[in-house]
Amino acid sequence: MQNKKLQKQIEFIITADKLKSILRKNYIIDNTRKENAAEHSWHLALMAITLFEYRIIKDLDLLRIVKMLIIHDLVEIEAGDSFAYSETENIDRELREKKAAENIFGILPEDNKEELLSLWYEFESEETGEAKFAKILDRLQPLIHNYKTEASGWENYKVRKEDILNRNKITKDVAPVLWQYIEEIVEDIDKKGYFNK
Amino acid sequence: MQNKKLQKQIEFIITADKLKSILRKNYIIDNTRKENAAEHSWHLALMAITLFEYRIIKDLDLLRIVKMLIIHDLVEIEAGDSFAYSETENIDRELREKKAAENIFGILPEDNKEELLSLWYEFESEETGEAKFAKILDRLQPLIHNYKTEASGWENYKVRKEDILNRNKITKDVAPVLWQYIEEIVEDIDKKGYFNK
Repeated sequence: MQNKKLQKQIEFIITADKLKSILRKNYIIDNTRKENAAEHSWHLALMAITLFEYRIIKDLDLLRIVKMLIIHDLVEIEAGDSFAYSETENIDRELREKKAAENIFGILPEDNKEELLSLWYEFESEETGEAKFAKILDRLQPLIHNYKTEASGWENYKVRKEDILNRNKITKDVAPVLWQYIEEIVEDIDKKGYFNK
Repeated sequence: MQNKKLQKQIEFIITADKLKSILRKNYIIDNTRKENAAEHSWHLALMAITLFEYRIIKDLDLLRIVKMLIIHDLVEIEAGDSFAYSETENIDRELREKKAAENIFGILPEDNKEELLSLWYEFESEETGEAKFAKILDRLQPLIHNYKTEASGWENYKVRKEDILNRNKITKDVAPVLWQYIEEIVEDIDKKGYFNK
């Protein structure tokens, strides 16, 4: 290719395709197969667009939230998916993912690399309002999936009610309406006996 | 659920999950399986973020482009995927998709429905700068996939060089740098003998 900058961008887009083969622990809602990280990222972007009104801080940049959600899992192409409630899978997770982020975003030209790497760090640090809103969706989505699939995604992991409430608790400050919904479905999941299975 | 508005939004998010089971004609780049419409939509959003600099009209709203790409295929949950180069699959396509759009976005509360339905029509009409930029990516992505998978997505359809150039030609005015890339790979696809297979 003649255009060297575009060549790097196309290479990145082609490498990113591998995210479609990274399987997560939870199942798609019809319960026929595990979800992959690319379609998960799409689902989160759709949730951000649909549920944006529930942010408590009104002055948030939706484009930055959606960008974060679109790119947040790309590191898994190299670092794999780590299940949130597994201790063993999270031991060296941070280090592995930072290295992976340098590699995958490093395929890009400098300006794209800088933007996306910095968005990835922002998401991971969970400090800005945008990162917090993106993170609560990344936690709510698998909860909805497990609610709808008799918790197939929690099989082989003893997931406890308090783990779920603890992991989602920042939702209370970021989007209280969504927190209320989480409390409702967690109660229902408990009633149905999906915890500690 | 107590909150009736949120209930509709969650129902929409759950219904949207079905897009992960709508298979397209083209394959993911490792050529192991067909791509689904949800992960395709994610890939397009990533492309919009990465390639936005190549728009010829500078004053475009990237958020609106990304929103269109995230929602553009939701109608396929009801209307199915229609292959661009098939005559039979496109006979009543417009009507089927309009009905599907009313149904799927109709699950949402009125304000969300209005926004997303109007974005979907904007994308389909291909008149605004945002819709044009979104559309050229929706055409470029499967071309890259077919280039990288020995055109597995074109099997059983005799796709001709002029069909591809014709379908992508608006790229010339919308993002000439991307058009140059398309010309390059179409030449290469021709040399490799993937057309008219």
